[in-house]
Amino acid sequence: MKVAILGYGTVGSGVYEVINTNKEIIAKKAGVGLEVAHVLDLRDFPGDPVEKVLTHDINDILNDPEVKVVAEVMGGVGAALRFTRAALEAGKSVCTSNKELVATHGCELMKVALEHGCRYLFEASVGGGIPLIRPIMTALHGDDIVHMKSILNGTTNYILTRMSEAGAGFEESLLEAQQKGYAEADPTADIEGHDAMRKTSILASILEGKYVSCENVHTEGISAVTAADFKYARKLHAGVKLLSVITRENGRVSAMVAPFLVREDNELYGVKGVKNASLICGNAVGDIMFYGSGAGKLPTASAVVADMAEAAQCMAEMSAAKQVPAWTEEPADVVPFDEYKSASLVRVEAADEQAARKSFKEIREVAPSEGEFAFLTSVMTEKDYVKAAEGLNIISRIRTDFVD
Amino acid sequence: MKVAILGYGTVGSGVYEVINTNKEIIAKKAGVGLEVAHVLDLRDFPGDPVEKVLTHDINDILNDPEVKVVAEVMGGVGAALRFTRAALEAGKSVCTSNKELVATHGCELMKVALEHGCRYLFEASVGGGIPLIRPIMTALHGDDIVHMKSILNGTTNYILTRMSEAGAGFEESLLEAQQKGYAEADPTADIEGHDAMRKTSILASILEGKYVSCENVHTEGISAVTAADFKYARKLHAGVKLLSVITRENGRVSAMVAPFLVREDNELYGVKGVKNASLICGNAVGDIMFYGSGAGKLPTASAVVADMAEAAQCMAEMSAAKQVPAWTEEPADVVPFDEYKSASLVRVEAADEQAARKSFKEIREVAPSEGEFAFLTSVMTEKDYVKAAEGLNIISRIRTDFVD
Repeated sequence: MKVAILGYGTVGSGVYEVINTNKEIIAKKAGVGLEVAHVLDLRDFPGDPVEKVLTHDINDILNDPEVKVVAEVMGGVGAALRFTRAALEAGKSVCTSNKELVATHGCELMKVALEHGCRYLFEASVGGGIPLIRPIMTALHGDDIVHMKSILNGTTNYILTRMSEAGAGFEESLLEAQQKGYAEADPTADIEGHDAMRKTSILASILEGKYVSCENVHTEGISAVTAADFKYARKLHAGVKLLSVITRENGRVSAMVAPFLVREDNELYGVKGVKNASLICGNAVGDIMFYGSGAGKLPTASAVVADMAEAAQCMAEMSAAKQVPAWTEEPADVVPFDEYKSASLVRVEAADEQAARKSFKEIREVAPSEGEFAFLTSVMTEKDYVKAAEGLNIISRIRTDFVD
Repeated sequence: MKVAILGYGTVGSGVYEVINTNKEIIAKKAGVGLEVAHVLDLRDFPGDPVEKVLTHDINDILNDPEVKVVAEVMGGVGAALRFTRAALEAGKSVCTSNKELVATHGCELMKVALEHGCRYLFEASVGGGIPLIRPIMTALHGDDIVHMKSILNGTTNYILTRMSEAGAGFEESLLEAQQKGYAEADPTADIEGHDAMRKTSILASILEGKYVSCENVHTEGISAVTAADFKYARKLHAGVKLLSVITRENGRVSAMVAPFLVREDNELYGVKGVKNASLICGNAVGDIMFYGSGAGKLPTASAVVADMAEAAQCMAEMSAAKQVPAWTEEPADVVPFDEYKSASLVRVEAADEQAARKSFKEIREVAPSEGEFAFLTSVMTEKDYVKAAEGLNIISRIRTDFVD
């Protein structure tokens, strides 16, 4: 199925890359392949492979009857709105990462899509690559969602993490974030909470099934948070996080974005740096959390492409019952256990130390305990492990999830 | 739409409860309501409201043309297999929490479903209420999943958490888990890793799109893990977790369940007690984690009911484009900001201490800092906060996510 991309910026080039890199995987999983027929951008990209499919004219896309799915990754609410509306009116599904457009015009655009038998999908508009909107929309049908607490902005979470761990001030941490490319030259939208506000508007509207506009999201940024606040937070075994908090009760909804003290025993406490996470509480499922990269070229592109695959299935009129089965009876090509690789923590009797050093060669000794010798092996196959362990009196062996 | 439940045990009664409690919510979200027409169980339940719909004969369900969706929550691979096959052959979709049946006969049953235009869904078979299978099947279409590391068994995770935190031995921790109802009288399936093995077989088969049988999952339990192992783990800033590790490389897959050292910087380290989690690494999305209750009556029922709602949409032949929109233009009933409730950490100038104590009444002082007075308020509305804060020289105020 032919698709088009509107905008060849960070996310747009990521979408182009993901579709091309994972072409076969997408076709296999979705049951329908994606082929980028057009990329719209005002700029030229001499020497970039995108040149073959680059256009400066939206009509090349709107008038191509073979293009059924369009990714809108331009941002803003000007041309993006006009192009999205036109594409939907032409019966093309549109998938977007544009949180501002979804938060302000999502309702109208979903309606246009419904009227024209296509879809308007926006998984990438909240939480970057974290599957968040789709699970809420499809996997929690049995639950009444009581509240949802989220970290939705990586820039502010990075700044607050630095203030917490390094005891640094706000200005200093912002500067560091800018130097590392985690904050923009004009960081207002992030640090004043506007970015998180738009995402909160989208999530609250989904949870409620009715529109919660940005004006209805009480929003406070993090520019007033100081190192002194963190000192008190530490005394309370807590950190400071910019939370999006949505609460549903008695048919009413409240939604806010503000700095909160979050205690060590809360799952969101451990969400550090530019990561995002959502803690959702349903009346049946209890607390569940979704966690991952909330921004970035490829993670965001991943979500856009997942939407494009769903839209493509939809445009190809694949009914759910005709979808690709979870697996077929064909046996997978399984790696023989002999070839599995891992490092291990091994304990042998003290008398075996020299023998162990000799047979395992590269080892890292772990602070000793009486009567035994404990060490970390290098990464090795099961076959090599068994060979090296032969003849040693092994007290215990536990594989490790890490390698130093 | 009429539905039936096979088995009125823990999960079955949970499914009955969730469908009845959240009836309106399910109908609104899914666009089609669920009504339990039959519950099959060999036992009688005198005085239980289920009596009205209870049957001892599977044919009451198979021969009722109005029943389109069936929940199989009996467990085992005997009657559960026969009934599931018969229901699918009668064109009824089946949703299950039965990991053993899915791991051993899933392929055949999905095929029967496909042939008869219905679905065989099993979100609840892995990770209880955590949406895991559906996100993998629908939200990561753009990604090549490189590896997946999971904690899939709450009983063993509880035992290992106790061994880690209390320095207790294995036998002692198992006994405690049994006393708390987290481990069965015969704990073999859990502690020897068989439960996690079945779940790993299901996940590996989904990731690969081909069948990875239980025989292909190398499985080691936790009964050999000792307090001494934890001492070494601590020296390495690690804990011991029973991990399910699935790795995909060069068209081959490896799958194992075994105790692993997991370091503090790994997201899975913080997964404690009976919680489950999956860390999935895709070549575009990077690391994402899903976390929640991996077992329990209502969480598991939540996943079964979400499957039933999806199956119902499918049986009602609702095409994706006709599905309920994420939200409508109707404005949500938003709580006025004045009525928002929270507790706060408040810092005032030292001179204002008495005034603050007077106006905020119930406060908890936080260890003092020079020149200021810091305290936690009780939970209060914004309106009451503003009133109490009037006239005080507030240095900072941060809301808290917790109440003591």
